[in-house]
Amino acid sequence: MSDRLTIALDAMGGDSAPDSVIEGAALASQRYPEAEFLVFGDEQRINSLMGKRKSLQQAVTICHAPEVIREDTSLLQALRKTRLSSMRLAFNAVTEGRARVVVSAGHTGILMAMAKQTLKLLPGIRRPALASFVPTRQGQAVMLDLGANVECDADDLVQFAVMGAMFSRAVLADRATDDPTVGLLNVGVEEGKGRVLIKAAADKLRKMSLPLRFKGFVEGHDIAEGVVDVIVTDGFTGNIALKTAEGTARLYSEFLRRAFHGSLLARASYHLVRSAFRKFKHRTDPRHYNGAMLLGLEGICIKSHGNSDAVGFAQALELAIMAIRNSFDERIKQQMGKLQLSLAYAPAVLAG
Amino acid sequence: MSDRLTIALDAMGGDSAPDSVIEGAALASQRYPEAEFLVFGDEQRINSLMGKRKSLQQAVTICHAPEVIREDTSLLQALRKTRLSSMRLAFNAVTEGRARVVVSAGHTGILMAMAKQTLKLLPGIRRPALASFVPTRQGQAVMLDLGANVECDADDLVQFAVMGAMFSRAVLADRATDDPTVGLLNVGVEEGKGRVLIKAAADKLRKMSLPLRFKGFVEGHDIAEGVVDVIVTDGFTGNIALKTAEGTARLYSEFLRRAFHGSLLARASYHLVRSAFRKFKHRTDPRHYNGAMLLGLEGICIKSHGNSDAVGFAQALELAIMAIRNSFDERIKQQMGKLQLSLAYAPAVLAG
Repeated sequence: MSDRLTIALDAMGGDSAPDSVIEGAALASQRYPEAEFLVFGDEQRINSLMGKRKSLQQAVTICHAPEVIREDTSLLQALRKTRLSSMRLAFNAVTEGRARVVVSAGHTGILMAMAKQTLKLLPGIRRPALASFVPTRQGQAVMLDLGANVECDADDLVQFAVMGAMFSRAVLADRATDDPTVGLLNVGVEEGKGRVLIKAAADKLRKMSLPLRFKGFVEGHDIAEGVVDVIVTDGFTGNIALKTAEGTARLYSEFLRRAFHGSLLARASYHLVRSAFRKFKHRTDPRHYNGAMLLGLEGICIKSHGNSDAVGFAQALELAIMAIRNSFDERIKQQMGKLQLSLAYAPAVLAG
Repeated sequence: MSDRLTIALDAMGGDSAPDSVIEGAALASQRYPEAEFLVFGDEQRINSLMGKRKSLQQAVTICHAPEVIREDTSLLQALRKTRLSSMRLAFNAVTEGRARVVVSAGHTGILMAMAKQTLKLLPGIRRPALASFVPTRQGQAVMLDLGANVECDADDLVQFAVMGAMFSRAVLADRATDDPTVGLLNVGVEEGKGRVLIKAAADKLRKMSLPLRFKGFVEGHDIAEGVVDVIVTDGFTGNIALKTAEGTARLYSEFLRRAFHGSLLARASYHLVRSAFRKFKHRTDPRHYNGAMLLGLEGICIKSHGNSDAVGFAQALELAIMAIRNSFDERIKQQMGKLQLSLAYAPAVLAG
């Protein structure tokens, strides 16, 4: 496997592909000149977008992909009939050792299925899960699943808890002394509250000896409070919670803008507080949290929001670069290996 | 039934009861001197809280309730054995015509069960649902269910859509010319995306002739965008989405505060932009959206957040006053009556 910062880009996934993908790569390339991009997609369109970007041209190798996976492509079609799609060729680059990470803003379900088919699941893992960082009062927390699995059972949630804790450890690298704290997202913190399957997952997490500190249930507002390091939920709820938070963030920026437009004095004094605003805006811009990692695989795959622009896509690329630099894949594998040893007496958990 | 603005208050429900309940009533009483409160709870404690509030004393009648429903009271216990609880006596006041509305910050599940037992379900309705207003770019939207039903099937979601549309119409009163638009909360807008039960509910809503305009799926970020008048989801997802939005709002206010503390210039010029900030803060304070209405009942029941303070509780009381003034109960019953006539050929929808 290459030691270089080589990233395989699915240039054709997402609402504004390939434009935002190429622009995003240009932004990331300015920040990380050492990064190299294998860009898979429509050669002609990508070439015309590259035209003016001299510095990017040095970092990019364009690999023509004659096929594209669209939002309306069926899963079966995507897996069986589009062997030359930009997404598939990007995965191949990783399995063949030409790149370390796949980054795509394409269809989540297809991305997950293709990741399983090409990168392979880690031993004992039943399904990959999408994990991302979310902003909290304390800094950030890891949240999963964000949409890879819309229907889950209690064992899936237990596996997500384990994978999330591993991810949190990999991110914190050697700074972590204690096991990460994990909370299950629910409608109340009391033991009797919530769905049957959530209560079953909590029971299992309480009884099992895992390399994490299970803190029981957490509620929606606890995410931003940062009460735990890892928030575990099913992909349906996680996806909706994440997007609701993003929508709220955008609405509140809009309210702030309106408040300052309303008063003449406020408008006049805006330039005095501009730098404070910029700081606030940067911190609350959902694009700066774009990029989720598909956990549970032998390789690294980063999913960008389907509707992300260049700034958002660049952020997903930054996560990819961080993942390579810190060898997330190796660290997670190591952690899973340790876990399996310690679970020798409870193999049912990981085998499902 | 009384024409007066008489509200039955469960003074013992919620994390900081009865303090925040009495303080909230005092705030509401200042704004609505015509409102009258029947306050059910521990007479001695309420009396001591009332002590200093002369103006409130005129608006309040204290009714001693020797029993209290706590967060750890079981549903069975609450329904069968605590006939003299503050919550139960508040409901009795409405069924006996002494008050028009019940307001409680108590346990959601027990509140719902007790509401069904005392106020009775509207004909054809299977389960009540909690609905509330959420802030949007356009103003506000109705969202339900917010936690009354953590496990739902497709028919429940269809009923929630109908009840939500009725509620939206009752709120808009005579200003609405078109049927309200309704969206089902999902992980994507494409027809094939999401959970099986969501897709089944969408199928039903598309095929049925209902007094609403079904717009298909909406995503988490569409809530704040205000793309539909009514957002329909199950009580688990709705509760988590709502609380996540509230947590995000609080976090972003905190970020704003920090941004202004960081820069000396910003701190110095803060007073110039103070009024703009106040406007922003008021608009983004989750307490100003507190209060959800339990729909599907013959009478009106308002649920306040369990952790709401006096400001939040006063907001729930304001919703109660608005509900009485606009005869929400009568309007919703009227609308349901019309719906049942129009559904004479499809009774299965309402009968479930």
